[in-house]
Amino acid sequence: MAEQSMPLRARQEFDPGLTQRYTGRLRRVINKDGSFNVRKRGVGWRETGVFLHLLNSGWLWFLTQAWMAYVVLNLGFAGVYYAIGVESLTGADRSTPLDSFLSAFFFSVQTFTTVGYGHVSPKGMLTSTVASFEAMMGLLSFAIGTGLVYARFSRPSAKLAFSEKMVVAPFNDGRALMFRIANRRPNVLMESEATAILMTVDKAGEHKRKYQPLKLDRERILFLPLTWTIVHSIDESSPLWGLDTEQLESLQAEFLILIKVFDDTFGQPVHARYSYTWDEIEWGRKFEQVFTVNADGDLELDLSDLGKTMPA
Amino acid sequence: MAEQSMPLRARQEFDPGLTQRYTGRLRRVINKDGSFNVRKRGVGWRETGVFLHLLNSGWLWFLTQAWMAYVVLNLGFAGVYYAIGVESLTGADRSTPLDSFLSAFFFSVQTFTTVGYGHVSPKGMLTSTVASFEAMMGLLSFAIGTGLVYARFSRPSAKLAFSEKMVVAPFNDGRALMFRIANRRPNVLMESEATAILMTVDKAGEHKRKYQPLKLDRERILFLPLTWTIVHSIDESSPLWGLDTEQLESLQAEFLILIKVFDDTFGQPVHARYSYTWDEIEWGRKFEQVFTVNADGDLELDLSDLGKTMPA
Amino acid sequence: MAEQSMPLRARQEFDPGLTQRYTGRLRRVINKDGSFNVRKRGVGWRETGVFLHLLNSGWLWFLTQAWMAYVVLNLGFAGVYYAIGVESLTGADRSTPLDSFLSAFFFSVQTFTTVGYGHVSPKGMLTSTVASFEAMMGLLSFAIGTGLVYARFSRPSAKLAFSEKMVVAPFNDGRALMFRIANRRPNVLMESEATAILMTVDKAGEHKRKYQPLKLDRERILFLPLTWTIVHSIDESSPLWGLDTEQLESLQAEFLILIKVFDDTFGQPVHARYSYTWDEIEWGRKFEQVFTVNADGDLELDLSDLGKTMPA
Amino acid sequence: MAEQSMPLRARQEFDPGLTQRYTGRLRRVINKDGSFNVRKRGVGWRETGVFLHLLNSGWLWFLTQAWMAYVVLNLGFAGVYYAIGVESLTGADRSTPLDSFLSAFFFSVQTFTTVGYGHVSPKGMLTSTVASFEAMMGLLSFAIGTGLVYARFSRPSAKLAFSEKMVVAPFNDGRALMFRIANRRPNVLMESEATAILMTVDKAGEHKRKYQPLKLDRERILFLPLTWTIVHSIDESSPLWGLDTEQLESLQAEFLILIKVFDDTFGQPVHARYSYTWDEIEWGRKFEQVFTVNADGDLELDLSDLGKTMPA
Repeated sequence: MAEQSMPLRARQEFDPGLTQRYTGRLRRVINKDGSFNVRKRGVGWRETGVFLHLLNSGWLWFLTQAWMAYVVLNLGFAGVYYAIGVESLTGADRSTPLDSFLSAFFFSVQTFTTVGYGHVSPKGMLTSTVASFEAMMGLLSFAIGTGLVYARFSRPSAKLAFSEKMVVAPFNDGRALMFRIANRRPNVLMESEATAILMTVDKAGEHKRKYQPLKLDRERILFLPLTWTIVHSIDESSPLWGLDTEQLESLQAEFLILIKVFDDTFGQPVHARYSYTWDEIEWGRKFEQVFTVNADGDLELDLSDLGKTMPA
Repeated sequence: MAEQSMPLRARQEFDPGLTQRYTGRLRRVINKDGSFNVRKRGVGWRETGVFLHLLNSGWLWFLTQAWMAYVVLNLGFAGVYYAIGVESLTGADRSTPLDSFLSAFFFSVQTFTTVGYGHVSPKGMLTSTVASFEAMMGLLSFAIGTGLVYARFSRPSAKLAFSEKMVVAPFNDGRALMFRIANRRPNVLMESEATAILMTVDKAGEHKRKYQPLKLDRERILFLPLTWTIVHSIDESSPLWGLDTEQLESLQAEFLILIKVFDDTFGQPVHARYSYTWDEIEWGRKFEQVFTVNADGDLELDLSDLGKTMPA
Repeated sequence: MAEQSMPLRARQEFDPGLTQRYTGRLRRVINKDGSFNVRKRGVGWRETGVFLHLLNSGWLWFLTQAWMAYVVLNLGFAGVYYAIGVESLTGADRSTPLDSFLSAFFFSVQTFTTVGYGHVSPKGMLTSTVASFEAMMGLLSFAIGTGLVYARFSRPSAKLAFSEKMVVAPFNDGRALMFRIANRRPNVLMESEATAILMTVDKAGEHKRKYQPLKLDRERILFLPLTWTIVHSIDESSPLWGLDTEQLESLQAEFLILIKVFDDTFGQPVHARYSYTWDEIEWGRKFEQVFTVNADGDLELDLSDLGKTMPA
Repeated sequence: MAEQSMPLRARQEFDPGLTQRYTGRLRRVINKDGSFNVRKRGVGWRETGVFLHLLNSGWLWFLTQAWMAYVVLNLGFAGVYYAIGVESLTGADRSTPLDSFLSAFFFSVQTFTTVGYGHVSPKGMLTSTVASFEAMMGLLSFAIGTGLVYARFSRPSAKLAFSEKMVVAPFNDGRALMFRIANRRPNVLMESEATAILMTVDKAGEHKRKYQPLKLDRERILFLPLTWTIVHSIDESSPLWGLDTEQLESLQAEFLILIKVFDDTFGQPVHARYSYTWDEIEWGRKFEQVFTVNADGDLELDLSDLGKTMPA
């Protein structure tokens, strides 16, 4: 991490880009899904992220919204055809006003999707012009719909799993804080880098937050096909030296984790954020081995055991 | 910034890539939208950026252009069908020449969009061949149209907001020049880097421009969920040391800002450029805090207050 | 490789991210296709990589799957139309139940693909509504199908070829271990970096794996238009110093290779992984020259000779 | 350039990845379009780059190929329909065998493009099944066609222009070799890096090629909105020190240029390669200024003058 190679002594206070002047009721800074507890106001609707919302929402919700947009747009066009007069739709069923409207609606659908069966077809310049416009709008609208479907389906990138808890276990001659990660997906991951930052709250003053980088035993690895146990030795130079669980509680300690990894399948870097709070540490335990060698000589990795611990 | 880690002493003049030999009437180098005041001539039409223009223009203008292209193309094909003879369009209304042409036009539309109702259909080899060609051209043309619509809609990337003004406020034992940025969009931004360059004009000589990098108190941060106040200490080593607003005016000072940030949502780096001129500095003021903690313990950030200042 | 610039002395054991505690029957760590011998369990179906599977499978298998999905979806919709009653499909052949079903099936196909000939068309609200839904689902389904086809076709990226064997040949005043790579595709490759790691198994203890980086004579080159012979000098500092083929066998030596290269055509970095085992070394041989100059003064590179060796 | 920061002393010979053992008739190593004079044999057809060929060929050639593929595919399907029997195409004109075939052909086109007018429609299970298959194949084929059209149209990336010649002009107290680049397109370019390598041929021995990096006065600049004149001082440490044009000729000198730049509009790095041979140097001349300030105070850059020189 470039951040850590900078002369930290030269600064009175290290700040990873989060604020120190946070004086309200405290809550987790980074959520379990990697987002920050920040709400933005004062931005226009174009910056509220319609696209990201549609990309990230669940499939059911997405398809419901797509379906609703489809119905609403076609109701609108049906209204226009109805207003012009359904007699300019050759082949339309005009038995009742409802039949007329339904004919206009299904004609609209057949135009919008470019199915165009033709058992109902436009007559006269006005209706034909509206239908021409609708066919084009249909194609452009489905550009967004189909683009989103494919983007959602092909959504790139690694999805890292983190152990639910950190552990404090014996390490070399002392103790170390550890957590464990793995890739949930089959993407091949290269050049993983880890950064860990301890955030504490100075209760004496104005609840100022303090950020301290934690030195890791190994900051980067070349490959990530299995699990990676990230280790911070609690030696004299560690800000955790001599602290126990009560002290961490009184400091409202939160460990901010940043993993940067190159997703070789999609050719782009991926960042994962995570955090552990003081009460998500298991003291005196260590992680169980999560892989076994099967009969073929392959490693088998059971990710449901990623967070499994045992007495150290 | 790699640029700053190079041995600047070894060079007589630092140049970020802009010219020093600029002798005309002076204007802002970098516009508020990040573009440079440069016009290019002597390039072919293929390099004038049709694609970028279509990608970056407003939606109304874009859709108008798309609509016009659609009408013009179909008028062209309608002309061809009309020239061949509308009698080879089965089902066409040939009451008057205008009716014939309109029939040809709407048949063209139905072919170009692949709606193909079929109440008008081609007859004879010539018309059928033209229609076959048109259907293919329609599909390929809509490849560009729908590609652009989706590209515009899914337009990646962070959009940084800058405070309208810089401030000069007390900082540590002295004073510092500061400005503030934030991300307008919900994209998660990582690893922000800032570079600031002071451009001045040497009026004694030939109005040569001089570029001096400004040392920043913190050049990079890990995350950018909130605002980032970028600080240049005005100490003895600063080119701003001892200068007041009149002197900056006579030097035609412009501060060129470059922000580089990794957009984690789209997996790519984003650069933002900005500039402040000497008259966009508020002396003796500081930025107001722009976020509050709401009832849920979340941070609320009001971006409309990004540039709000108060007496220092 | 950043990994190698880190102070390796500071660590007792170097680990590129693979495990040391591997105690089962040994097999190759990295396969010839660059994958790792790892199976994952405990992940949901959404993380098993349907998309990657469809992207990477052979064309025949892919098209078969696409075709089957197409038939199954249309059988489903045909069942719905049949259940509603084929009398609401105007123009359908209802001579026999089979004819009715086939009519429903082909109507479904014509709707799903938006061909919509119209010789069969929906009548009544229920069938029309189902058809409206099917047309939309068809468009969204083909978004995935066509997106995959194009993604497969435009699959980016360099494909590196490796010599089948390594050689140990005289080099300068001593000997060196060498292997050779080239780009199979016409993409232009820039800034190639190579990393080689020796993996051995400590049979004395618990079959612990040991990883040692091999110092390369040249770790990176600017361009890769031809072949690149990657060379590790076997001098006193090399972990291979003094070892012969029996000793490498008893250590179960495997050479893990990582090549990182920038694919200039697609604008993204590409990683290639490969490995050689102890029995894939030819001792006392060297690589034959693989290119000749043709009559035009061009270099001709014959990749089928990439692994060809001759007595050293 | 990372390459240059490596300890070059430690190597007897610097090689940027091109061969030294080139003994044939000499020709330019890097062509003016940035490609290398290398032909590859021994690779399968799947690695010959069909996709890249279709992406990079001229529009006329591309559209001709697309059109031919379209005609050939439809002739094939027409043949199938004709073989089954045109009587199973309701509405087809069967006056003569040619009319029958043409009807089958145009029906195929209407199915392949999903226009589906319906004045000709399939009857019977066999023809309907073929049409179902064709509609799907049409959609998948157009996935490639339309994907390519959009990819060609949206083709990213900067296109650098180089001055036709290098100049040797007075510089500081001595002389320097210079060339000039600019971006032809409106894309904003950031963080340009230049590398220059002198290639000479040792005629005494076996025509071995020798590569020597040339130290540049400025290796990187922050922005590239205008032109960039890249300068190599010919001082005592330069391999060009004391050489004149005859000596460069006898050494068959070629200057290999690599420019790396970040295209901010497309968010990806772009590399440009170029080369100058010994006879593309103008001695004792310097570049003319290529930009003027217009009435609005904007810089106007005339790229057709990029290579214009004047006596130094």
